[in-house]
Amino acid sequence: MKIIEGNVTSPKGFSAAGIHCGLKKEKKDMAVIVSNSLCSAAGCFTTNVVKAAPVLYDMETVKNPIKAVVVNSGNANACTGEQGLIDAAHTADVLAELAGCEGKNVLVASTGVIGVNLPMDILTKGVKDCYAELGSDFESGENAAAAIMTTDTFAKKICCEINIGGKTVTLAGMSKGSGMINPNMATMLCFITTDAKISSEVLQKALSAAVVDSFNMISVDGDMSTNDTVIALANGLAENEEIKADTKEYDSFFEALFYINKTLAVMCAKDGEGATKLIEAHVYNAPTKNDARLLARSIVSSNLFKAAIFGSDANWGRALCAMGYSGGKFEPMKVSLSFVSDNGSILVMDKGRPIVFDEDLAKKILSEDKIIVDVDVAEGSAEATAWGCDLTYDYVKINGDYRS
Amino acid sequence: MKIIEGNVTSPKGFSAAGIHCGLKKEKKDMAVIVSNSLCSAAGCFTTNVVKAAPVLYDMETVKNPIKAVVVNSGNANACTGEQGLIDAAHTADVLAELAGCEGKNVLVASTGVIGVNLPMDILTKGVKDCYAELGSDFESGENAAAAIMTTDTFAKKICCEINIGGKTVTLAGMSKGSGMINPNMATMLCFITTDAKISSEVLQKALSAAVVDSFNMISVDGDMSTNDTVIALANGLAENEEIKADTKEYDSFFEALFYINKTLAVMCAKDGEGATKLIEAHVYNAPTKNDARLLARSIVSSNLFKAAIFGSDANWGRALCAMGYSGGKFEPMKVSLSFVSDNGSILVMDKGRPIVFDEDLAKKILSEDKIIVDVDVAEGSAEATAWGCDLTYDYVKINGDYRS
Repeated sequence: MKIIEGNVTSPKGFSAAGIHCGLKKEKKDMAVIVSNSLCSAAGCFTTNVVKAAPVLYDMETVKNPIKAVVVNSGNANACTGEQGLIDAAHTADVLAELAGCEGKNVLVASTGVIGVNLPMDILTKGVKDCYAELGSDFESGENAAAAIMTTDTFAKKICCEINIGGKTVTLAGMSKGSGMINPNMATMLCFITTDAKISSEVLQKALSAAVVDSFNMISVDGDMSTNDTVIALANGLAENEEIKADTKEYDSFFEALFYINKTLAVMCAKDGEGATKLIEAHVYNAPTKNDARLLARSIVSSNLFKAAIFGSDANWGRALCAMGYSGGKFEPMKVSLSFVSDNGSILVMDKGRPIVFDEDLAKKILSEDKIIVDVDVAEGSAEATAWGCDLTYDYVKINGDYRS
Repeated sequence: MKIIEGNVTSPKGFSAAGIHCGLKKEKKDMAVIVSNSLCSAAGCFTTNVVKAAPVLYDMETVKNPIKAVVVNSGNANACTGEQGLIDAAHTADVLAELAGCEGKNVLVASTGVIGVNLPMDILTKGVKDCYAELGSDFESGENAAAAIMTTDTFAKKICCEINIGGKTVTLAGMSKGSGMINPNMATMLCFITTDAKISSEVLQKALSAAVVDSFNMISVDGDMSTNDTVIALANGLAENEEIKADTKEYDSFFEALFYINKTLAVMCAKDGEGATKLIEAHVYNAPTKNDARLLARSIVSSNLFKAAIFGSDANWGRALCAMGYSGGKFEPMKVSLSFVSDNGSILVMDKGRPIVFDEDLAKKILSEDKIIVDVDVAEGSAEATAWGCDLTYDYVKINGDYRS
């Protein structure tokens, strides 16, 4: 696998655009991705009972061959009643007419404020204006990545190449965070393009597996969104022999797809609303993989622990406390816990006993912008990693008056 | 039931004291409650896997007749290994010797920093000094309520009288919050005294039932503590005929006990760390009581919603979103939601459809210090109420450097 500079337009046959259409005051707020040919598609969606209209629409539509995706930021089209469903379908129809396909071949996604119907005049004109800007160059992909941002502070995209039977296959993705982010997807949209030849069934299998230890292992604030969506589109233009499940080609493809997912997920955690630090919780020697995941996610989800990390305070008891209500199995009296950063590492709990540690060293370690919490559960051999961010004044500021 | 000015020393035969013993820098940090005679006792404890040493100690000890309780703030004696258990038992022994009973008749409770062993020299001297201050007057009860506070901004206590077969029975309670508070108990200690004559079995039945819709329905930050404890002591000195289960006397007693629990729980929510507003989520017409509880608790637990309330922002979509990931059953397209305060009420969602509402009026309503979120689920007849608080800069400030 080779990591390259690129974005969603890097795989063969994909064009994209990102523009300001008027949903937000000034910033880009609409993106379109179009493939030259119909794609195998796969999707993973929020498990929130309250699903936004585009999620309900996509959950059905993704079963079809897909040619294009339209994404708007600034309005989530969530909690918008029956009208929301009509608006989502209409948006797809508008793009379908331009792209020369049917509405059933177009996916839609929205992010932003909940509970306000889409202004369809602005949206319809926006789709047309955005389509007119389509390009397969690098800059067009960058514009698309910028247009899906809400409170994100940087655009998130990644690209890599693999070799499948002598053919170069490219995978790329873009995503947005950055609040309402919690395990089991986030207020998180992610769009992955690839020119791999792969059936939608096999692509779905790979995508479903890839999100488990990537997007489902991040948390910003414990709020699982109504709009979480990860879409993968594969147009087959790399002309590789079709990737079948349980082959070494599948393994190569999965490795690359997981890399894309994980990289974008960690970017979302790092860019959590108001975040100043990335927190990585690494739990190992757990009884089962599921226990390890529950324990790791609970640590990065604890408000108290996240606030302590903001203050560079080695309050490790809060991490242990969060493990205690996670539902994951472990024996508190066996746990060892260390903090690790570029400034060193420090053991603070050793097999259930608190260690008297050097507070100055701990402060120095926790002052870095990436903090690893290393937890040895000493109960088995399973491990998992979760990512989150600190809880800061700016999180409160951003969310105290998001709609204005 | 008559609400009276009083505290844990108001029921007959109870003395208390609260002093500064040196665990904290300046503030009171130790309280003792002693009954003239052995009490029937009942307790409810944290369900966190990581249970503090005093919790493990009390879970066994509460089965015995109880004569006294000692509580320290400033150190939680949690995550303190085997030494923590030894220290908890030793603390009980010190008080037992003074009170003329055995260690098995004394309960202990701790709150404060996790992961630091108790300084037993300070604690032992503290118990003796505190015992020397014991009094059955009002002020002694007030001192005890003050001594169990951590980041609480006010002492929490309540008292009431009921008539049981011609005898006046008094119940009183004191509690502390105010961070690490989440459904299924809180970092929350609560001590209830009563002179009622009631067996420990019937008292436990009443207490267990009373916490379900009181302490288990509050959330400050989603972090379930290692130390949550609710203790009730009944010494029988009111000389009423013993209260039996399933009688009208039991119903009167339960009503008073629930009132004590609920009042103290709401005080804890209102005084959540950094809080400026009390949030009350009232969910009704839900399919089952359990669904109603899950939905109500999820609303008051959502960081995003709590931050919006801090900013007086009527971002009701976040409440609906929180209901969506609560696990409670409901149909989003049927929900109606209003905000209510002393400044009026405003409907923002009507049977699944968002309402275009008067933003100025909404802001005015949300500017009050008690906000009710009124949710009609339109799916049944069950209801529940949960309490929480807004998420503020001060929450982050308080928790960013709690240990210093």
